[in-house]
Amino acid sequence: MRVSSSRLVSFTHRSIAAILYEVEPLEDAVQVVVQSELVTNETLPMSEKDPRAAAALASPLASDFFGGEELGAMLIHTTKASGLTVAAAMDHRVDGPPDTRTTIRSDPDLARLTITATVAPGGPLRITKFVGYGWSGERTVPALRDQVDAALAGAVQTGWDGLLQQQRAFLDGIWEHADIEIDGDAELQQAVRFAAFRTLQAAARGERRLIPAKGLTGPGYDGHTFWDTEAFVLPPLLLAYPPSVADALRWRHRTLDLARERARSLGLRGAAFPWRTIHGEECSGHWPAGAAAFHINAAIADAVERYLLVTEDEAFAREAGVELLVETARLWRSLGHHDAAGKFRIDGVTGPDEYSAIADNNVYTNLMAARNLKAAADAIERRPKLARRLGVNGEETAGWRTAAEAIFIPYDTSLGVHPQAEGFTEHQEWDFDSTPPENYPLLLHYPYFDLYRKQVVKQADLVMALFYAGEYFTPEQKARDFAFYERLTVRDSSLSACVQAAVAAEVGHVELAYDYFAEAALLDLDDLQHNTRDGIHIASLAGACTAAIAGFGGLRDRGGKLSFVPRLPGALTRLALNLRARKTTRLRIEVEPTRATYTLLIGEQLDIQHYGELITLTTDEPVQRAIPPANQLEPPTQPRGRARLRRRRPARRA
Amino acid sequence: MRVSSSRLVSFTHRSIAAILYEVEPLEDAVQVVVQSELVTNETLPMSEKDPRAAAALASPLASDFFGGEELGAMLIHTTKASGLTVAAAMDHRVDGPPDTRTTIRSDPDLARLTITATVAPGGPLRITKFVGYGWSGERTVPALRDQVDAALAGAVQTGWDGLLQQQRAFLDGIWEHADIEIDGDAELQQAVRFAAFRTLQAAARGERRLIPAKGLTGPGYDGHTFWDTEAFVLPPLLLAYPPSVADALRWRHRTLDLARERARSLGLRGAAFPWRTIHGEECSGHWPAGAAAFHINAAIADAVERYLLVTEDEAFAREAGVELLVETARLWRSLGHHDAAGKFRIDGVTGPDEYSAIADNNVYTNLMAARNLKAAADAIERRPKLARRLGVNGEETAGWRTAAEAIFIPYDTSLGVHPQAEGFTEHQEWDFDSTPPENYPLLLHYPYFDLYRKQVVKQADLVMALFYAGEYFTPEQKARDFAFYERLTVRDSSLSACVQAAVAAEVGHVELAYDYFAEAALLDLDDLQHNTRDGIHIASLAGACTAAIAGFGGLRDRGGKLSFVPRLPGALTRLALNLRARKTTRLRIEVEPTRATYTLLIGEQLDIQHYGELITLTTDEPVQRAIPPANQLEPPTQPRGRARLRRRRPARRA
Repeated sequence: MRVSSSRLVSFTHRSIAAILYEVEPLEDAVQVVVQSELVTNETLPMSEKDPRAAAALASPLASDFFGGEELGAMLIHTTKASGLTVAAAMDHRVDGPPDTRTTIRSDPDLARLTITATVAPGGPLRITKFVGYGWSGERTVPALRDQVDAALAGAVQTGWDGLLQQQRAFLDGIWEHADIEIDGDAELQQAVRFAAFRTLQAAARGERRLIPAKGLTGPGYDGHTFWDTEAFVLPPLLLAYPPSVADALRWRHRTLDLARERARSLGLRGAAFPWRTIHGEECSGHWPAGAAAFHINAAIADAVERYLLVTEDEAFAREAGVELLVETARLWRSLGHHDAAGKFRIDGVTGPDEYSAIADNNVYTNLMAARNLKAAADAIERRPKLARRLGVNGEETAGWRTAAEAIFIPYDTSLGVHPQAEGFTEHQEWDFDSTPPENYPLLLHYPYFDLYRKQVVKQADLVMALFYAGEYFTPEQKARDFAFYERLTVRDSSLSACVQAAVAAEVGHVELAYDYFAEAALLDLDDLQHNTRDGIHIASLAGACTAAIAGFGGLRDRGGKLSFVPRLPGALTRLALNLRARKTTRLRIEVEPTRATYTLLIGEQLDIQHYGELITLTTDEPVQRAIPPANQLEPPTQPRGRARLRRRRPARRA
Repeated sequence: MRVSSSRLVSFTHRSIAAILYEVEPLEDAVQVVVQSELVTNETLPMSEKDPRAAAALASPLASDFFGGEELGAMLIHTTKASGLTVAAAMDHRVDGPPDTRTTIRSDPDLARLTITATVAPGGPLRITKFVGYGWSGERTVPALRDQVDAALAGAVQTGWDGLLQQQRAFLDGIWEHADIEIDGDAELQQAVRFAAFRTLQAAARGERRLIPAKGLTGPGYDGHTFWDTEAFVLPPLLLAYPPSVADALRWRHRTLDLARERARSLGLRGAAFPWRTIHGEECSGHWPAGAAAFHINAAIADAVERYLLVTEDEAFAREAGVELLVETARLWRSLGHHDAAGKFRIDGVTGPDEYSAIADNNVYTNLMAARNLKAAADAIERRPKLARRLGVNGEETAGWRTAAEAIFIPYDTSLGVHPQAEGFTEHQEWDFDSTPPENYPLLLHYPYFDLYRKQVVKQADLVMALFYAGEYFTPEQKARDFAFYERLTVRDSSLSACVQAAVAAEVGHVELAYDYFAEAALLDLDDLQHNTRDGIHIASLAGACTAAIAGFGGLRDRGGKLSFVPRLPGALTRLALNLRARKTTRLRIEVEPTRATYTLLIGEQLDIQHYGELITLTTDEPVQRAIPPANQLEPPTQPRGRARLRRRRPARRA
């Protein structure tokens, strides 16, 4: 038998998926029975030990309606806890031999089309299944039924070929400006494209809804969104498909009242966005490990700033963007204080590293807060009318600028490195030598009491600062800080390898960057953390794209200036990136081991930097530049906590 | 009618209480009905808002037995959750007019003797009620019945007068060596004796059981014991009745295996005693506010060290004391570490102040840990056989001494004060001006997130260090540190005023000390915290005794040397203390406004210091010394958080 199946979840038809299913015997005619179903209240996969997996609910849906006729059926349910009504419907086109028969049945939790046919070689049974989906917290069951029926009718009318053609056209439009081509490692070429596609899929039809940490691919993290979205998912998405970034940020903006209320309840001003949420309320149960991670507010502001810089979308700025900048700036101003020496300190908060909590002056948090304060002041001062509407005066913006300029960054002069938060480098180092490989992830084997008070890092934290706020560090300082934290970072979080990849490449550890890039990109394809059944790790996949672009492409894009310091690991012979530079300007960069080629695809003029040299691109003539030989840096000590990094074998180049 | 009632809970008859109840009409004969009951499964008083009050259980006891005959009855129940069997029985002696009649009845939750009589002037109805009590997790109902019947028979045989006489003799023996006499403030004289009695009552018949934070006076704190016992209750109890101190510490020693197990589970060595417990297991639900308060281990060690110093009880040392010192020392050695400069740091723990959590190098914790390490080394080196039995060698004690000597004490050179923990003085100060009086206690009105990260102190913390580890500070430093923390300490805990009183007196704020002393002593008599219905605050009452002895008596007793710096507040004309000095040596000190009189009551010779002058007492001749005029210190700024301190009006002395 030859069975072929093609599936798509449409980017162009809202709430439509389709499957083309073909069955054909290779030798003799054979009777085939195909069951095409809608099933609900299925038992979810349960993770037995891992507290991070969501507790699956038993039968969370109550049936409101079920029915079927001819080749279609519909099930409507209401979620028991949250009272949302959910409709799912299917219709089919069946193309088979003359004896093909179909039977439809429908029960509260199951609808099924049974197709029987005697199929012979050369006369395949071809079934197209169209699935429509809709939900609402307000609309009635009949209204929802109409809506889903209509969507389904449109999809059936368009047909499989039409849906496929529209899907391809949509995606061609994306990849034309966002593809990442890798030569020399086919597995990673596939992985990075999988990553880019999954990132797009999680976000492209979000339509002012949150982007959950697992997208819609599994029950992990209870469907909640975290800082993952703004810090990891939106940056590469901004290059691929800016409208989805605007959607995601408009969703945040719609939750602003709840965030203001939470700030007030904490004795703060402005808005305090929740650490984890679906609707905008804080869903984190243990505040030191959740709500105290205020840096999410800076990630939101940073995403707004980046979006405005690339798109110049002034309507978004006026409707949502600037208010987000202002309310997060107000939060920081009230959360921090100027000490006796005038320095602006932010005490008692939790930074990115989840093996620390409630510390003073986390470097990443402080630098991102400073940038948030400055961005808000800049945005307001350019828009005096908006300033009045948002109630911001010159006194307030002056206070933001003063705080940003006086931000306190702790430094350990004896070690010559930045502590990730005040006092961190004085703590006892984790006893890596006595930690066997099977004791990772540490959170499942050691009490948080022990993790919190020692030098052990779950995920890039100070290294996040080196990447996201790189302009505050000299290259030498970056190299020292990176090497210091390498020894301590165990990557028990999936939000680590991608950032480490980008910074490793920058400071000269290109092969190490390659290893980290592979880990981030293969996390789900190879199920490296043994929890992909709970859903894929969208942030790590998005981060893998960033690792390729910012690590091997060497792109930095701060304050409107595009600069490149490209460098390839030994195994790769070519990296090519199509990039959205500014608004409608498009750039292609092709990196080979010893040279880089820059081509202005669309646009009048673009200034870029290549290893510090200013290049002005004005035509679509490719411009080539040599890549200087890599710094032959000693690789940093193999991190003792890094139990699971698989070294990639560099292919020998001819 | 004249009704008089006298009650006692016997110190000499185990598990016996008695009531003498007399009724007599003043004019005409009258019929009287008296009901004498045993009641169980009563509804407990519920605190509606305060999370600190225990959640009262509904009908926690299941009936095993009930019965009554003649003038007596017994109820036996088993606690539903913990499976303990509890027996309570009563018997009576009734002395009344000839028509006196009695009826006994008994139900599962109620036993009642009804007494009717026509009582005439001059012929009172006199009822003596004897109550016996027993419990066991192992003995059977019949065995428990026998035990309680026997105790009750003994009490009836002894009779009211006999019980009263034995009670008086026992207490005379206590107060002869432990009374605190105050002239000039009758209310505080009563209060401090109430305090001393309640402290004794909570502990004297503990018999190797825990001393709960509320004694047996109410359901608050679920019957759990905390560091209150060792840090606050045992020091004055050691002067009054040392056997009960040994009992309490032997109870701790019996829980050592659980404490060792908990240390292991935290990746530590030695023993980690629980923050709150009944049986020795950790019952604190939120570790940053509970289990991370390791200083309880130092309080236990300190109580052992004090007990051994005063009693020279070598049997206790061998059986329990030294092992407690050793296992707590091992805990500290594994909890802390030597940093690059060799300093011994203890990171990520919670100190006494419950408005801070998880900080590095809490000064009180570090100093008490250092003392613990040194005391263990001293105790072991004096007992080589015991050292071998406990597996301690010279390497280990050397490690303890090195850590103790290198203990890191943070200091804020710009302010000239000690931060209570590293970084504390850099934090933002609590906005006291915007905190209305009705918002105290703060924990009921502000999130812990906000309290933890700011300079606001629930209870003496650094000031605890000034008192318990005073030898580490110069007098000038004490004055500066005390003044600094006065502004910040809101006394939302009942464990604060007594320590502040002792240190205020020492640094020269004698009138302020008097205010704090009054608050500690009157806490329950005046229900200052509106929660005495949940049970009395034993630690505050014990602390009031300490405030009188160490504050106005000015006694310091470190390393075997008794020194006095007595000073009276304006309202008091005399303070007299009977003190247990060493083993069998007894001392009396009488303080008047301008002189102190020391008398050796029992013993051959005693060296004491009076304002630094060495005095050797060898006879029972009183020795008088002048008290130098008090430092006329400016009182510290009225603490802005101190919303409830009632200033006592100093009486004008003639």
